[in-house]
Amino acid sequence: MAKEITSRSEDYSQWYNDLVRKAKLADHSAVKGCMVIRPYGFALWENMRDQLDKMFKDTGHVNAYFPLFIPKSFMSKEAAHIEGFAKECAVITHYRLKNDPNGGGVIVDPDAKLEEELIVRPTSETIIWNTYRDWIQSYRDLPLLINQWANVVRWEMRTRLFLRTAEFLWQEGHTAHATAQEAIAETRQMLDVYAQFAEEWMAMPVIKGVKTANERFAGAEDTYTIEALMQDGKALQAGTSHYLGQNFAKAFEVTFLNESNQQEFVYATSWGVSTRLIGGLIMTHSDDDGLMFPPKLAPVQVVFVPIPKPTEEIDRAIGEMSQGLKALGVRIQYDSDTQTRPGFKFAEHELRGVPIRIAVGPRDLEQNQVEVARRDTREKRFVKIEDLSVEIPKLLADIQLTMFNKAKQYRDEHITPVDTMDEFVKVLDEKGGFVLAHWDGTVETEEKIKELTKATARCIPLDGDKEPGLCVLTGNPSAQRILFARSY
Amino acid sequence: MAKEITSRSEDYSQWYNDLVRKAKLADHSAVKGCMVIRPYGFALWENMRDQLDKMFKDTGHVNAYFPLFIPKSFMSKEAAHIEGFAKECAVITHYRLKNDPNGGGVIVDPDAKLEEELIVRPTSETIIWNTYRDWIQSYRDLPLLINQWANVVRWEMRTRLFLRTAEFLWQEGHTAHATAQEAIAETRQMLDVYAQFAEEWMAMPVIKGVKTANERFAGAEDTYTIEALMQDGKALQAGTSHYLGQNFAKAFEVTFLNESNQQEFVYATSWGVSTRLIGGLIMTHSDDDGLMFPPKLAPVQVVFVPIPKPTEEIDRAIGEMSQGLKALGVRIQYDSDTQTRPGFKFAEHELRGVPIRIAVGPRDLEQNQVEVARRDTREKRFVKIEDLSVEIPKLLADIQLTMFNKAKQYRDEHITPVDTMDEFVKVLDEKGGFVLAHWDGTVETEEKIKELTKATARCIPLDGDKEPGLCVLTGNPSAQRILFARSY
Repeated sequence: MAKEITSRSEDYSQWYNDLVRKAKLADHSAVKGCMVIRPYGFALWENMRDQLDKMFKDTGHVNAYFPLFIPKSFMSKEAAHIEGFAKECAVITHYRLKNDPNGGGVIVDPDAKLEEELIVRPTSETIIWNTYRDWIQSYRDLPLLINQWANVVRWEMRTRLFLRTAEFLWQEGHTAHATAQEAIAETRQMLDVYAQFAEEWMAMPVIKGVKTANERFAGAEDTYTIEALMQDGKALQAGTSHYLGQNFAKAFEVTFLNESNQQEFVYATSWGVSTRLIGGLIMTHSDDDGLMFPPKLAPVQVVFVPIPKPTEEIDRAIGEMSQGLKALGVRIQYDSDTQTRPGFKFAEHELRGVPIRIAVGPRDLEQNQVEVARRDTREKRFVKIEDLSVEIPKLLADIQLTMFNKAKQYRDEHITPVDTMDEFVKVLDEKGGFVLAHWDGTVETEEKIKELTKATARCIPLDGDKEPGLCVLTGNPSAQRILFARSY
Repeated sequence: MAKEITSRSEDYSQWYNDLVRKAKLADHSAVKGCMVIRPYGFALWENMRDQLDKMFKDTGHVNAYFPLFIPKSFMSKEAAHIEGFAKECAVITHYRLKNDPNGGGVIVDPDAKLEEELIVRPTSETIIWNTYRDWIQSYRDLPLLINQWANVVRWEMRTRLFLRTAEFLWQEGHTAHATAQEAIAETRQMLDVYAQFAEEWMAMPVIKGVKTANERFAGAEDTYTIEALMQDGKALQAGTSHYLGQNFAKAFEVTFLNESNQQEFVYATSWGVSTRLIGGLIMTHSDDDGLMFPPKLAPVQVVFVPIPKPTEEIDRAIGEMSQGLKALGVRIQYDSDTQTRPGFKFAEHELRGVPIRIAVGPRDLEQNQVEVARRDTREKRFVKIEDLSVEIPKLLADIQLTMFNKAKQYRDEHITPVDTMDEFVKVLDEKGGFVLAHWDGTVETEEKIKELTKATARCIPLDGDKEPGLCVLTGNPSAQRILFARSY
């Protein structure tokens, strides 16, 4: 029968792990902290990546590739950056192994020590801005709108598949501009691209905002974020876009001749999303029976299951239906396995989050119809075969929308304004989700709140209520309510 | 004026570097041996990757992602493999930096030493077969047809952009099969895919063959290769496909229950091509004026140049022509720069290898025509604007074919059968290219020939003459002529 999945109420964290592993999205690897992304998980990532890549290119960006390694000294050039990144990272000290003269297998060759250690990139601002120095001379070389799809490594002790792993896949945009204004506009534009992707493709509602100084990217002037809410009431930072000012240009001496013929430091942005989004996707939509993938990103959108098993007639009918749907761009699968029964297959494809299942039996075929079941609402109905080419695309669009609306309703119900610390804690403990509270703008208050509640300032929302008030902790003046939550 | 390019006859190696750097395909980086792939070079790689990826998927493969790091001990498990790969590699020994207590910036934290060192993958057989052990139990789990697009690192002292760098991008297919026969068929199938890609997309003729035992991949039973010929008469190994037998299954204890209910070791293949192909593409087609990209892979297929500079009328005409061509899937660019003159632009786009240039001037427009120039033959002719949608696709196809035929003629003229060592050396020194010579099948002879001529056995060709003869060096019996060349 179907694979045992821990329920959310029993153990949310185990539920998540069960889904990831039993649906064969990813596995832990023999290397501590590093995951293996299995074909089904990677197919999902490919769909996400291809759509994001298209959105980047539509906004004028091009891809490039920079080295995996960063000289240790580069990490120290931007003072804030080193504090944030250089500490937990993979360090390459040698470039050769040799046979152990004492017969103990292979050992590191002490004669092959690097003069300067190399860091495996945790993010690429330093190596990229060191390169931009050679590419930028005048305002005519700007803007530089470059993105990179890459693997990065941040040494993590406590890892969770997709959400936090030592190595992960991501994209990092690194742009260079002649003015602060243009760079800030770019930062905001990419935040909008991320929000649009999250909502329209992942069906995952997000709140756009600015991070507090304390939560900023190491080396940024401003960090913009999209924040999503998971089903356990915890927030997930789903993407960030940084306005870097002239910090990296100064650290790496990247200047340009502006239109007034003066040397000036270049303005920078960087922005990234990662395989972490897959964790967000899973925790936004799935249930105790398994994954639930939004149709626009699902590796398989429609699975055909023969009832009770394949016959020549069923094979032919499914072949014809598949062809028709494929021609419309629908991603289909035919589960023609002869050694498992329909009930097992149903459970399996529910676990895998396939949006639509079509059951095809001989009696249905006699009536020229099939049974169409949707994963999200579990609704089933018979559809005439001749109507599939209209009904399936409509149904896929409806599932996409229904999933978004459901997630949005949950999210909206879990944004709670609070005016006292008691309420703050009570909401977090009993209801979860975001709390909207006034804050006096100081790091001290932010850290004190974190200490008291385990909640962090998620962001200062860009949209919504800008009414001033009094800080929930200190009673000091506050410019507007900001969003707090416990988070991943 | 146009950038100075060293001519091939003057200094072939400098010519190559000039093209790569001045056409902005790639640059050296601050990290010794690692390159930066610039947007124009990366766009070419994306086209190559997308087409290969499609061909892999069309032959039933799926993508996945495995860890960047490999535990040191894994490298020793397959005896031949360690000899070939573990020696020159990036070794991670620590996972943290810290501030130097003596104020010397950041230093490696001696307390953060890894218990077991990690190697940055030079190739992934070991980590993948260690993973497959958990994925394969019965013949029903087979075949496993997985590919990975990834970066790999092989420490290299003497590097050349694209051709030999410490870090490079590639794909590595790793498949698992229930029988030797099926695995060998897979190995051959992927060799055919590579050959088809090289010839039909890169317009680069290749010879398919088997490597001699001496030149085999470390851990393979048989290595198949496609060998191309560069314009300086040196060969380039452009892709390899390995039949690995049960070597890695045995090293990592990967067994399956076969249909007769017996435990058996799994059969393996692996196959890969890399960014090295870009080097091959450049050296197959380009000339002293710059790159020459085959239309199917060119990032820009048609560039419009306004004569002598943009006007409203020219902008409008080019806008309309562009729209028409884009709708046909043609990749176009409009060089609307106002600060450079047509002659400069012509040279620039020749350097960049754009297959077709369309010059648009006011007098041409009066006659409803434009001047179309092809990069490969330099032919120019006037084409009526209304005919572009027919003529441009035809011309792109013709350029693709002409480039292939030209390269094939050169290659065919540079395969020379020789019967004595004197001839062997004379051909290599005076004419270059491949020599076809009888060889007695021993490693000793192969190495002696290499010592005498600097040529290596490139492959035992799969097609062509199978007539036996006498070894060119020893006079001992030879089963067939094999291909030798000096190579990259």
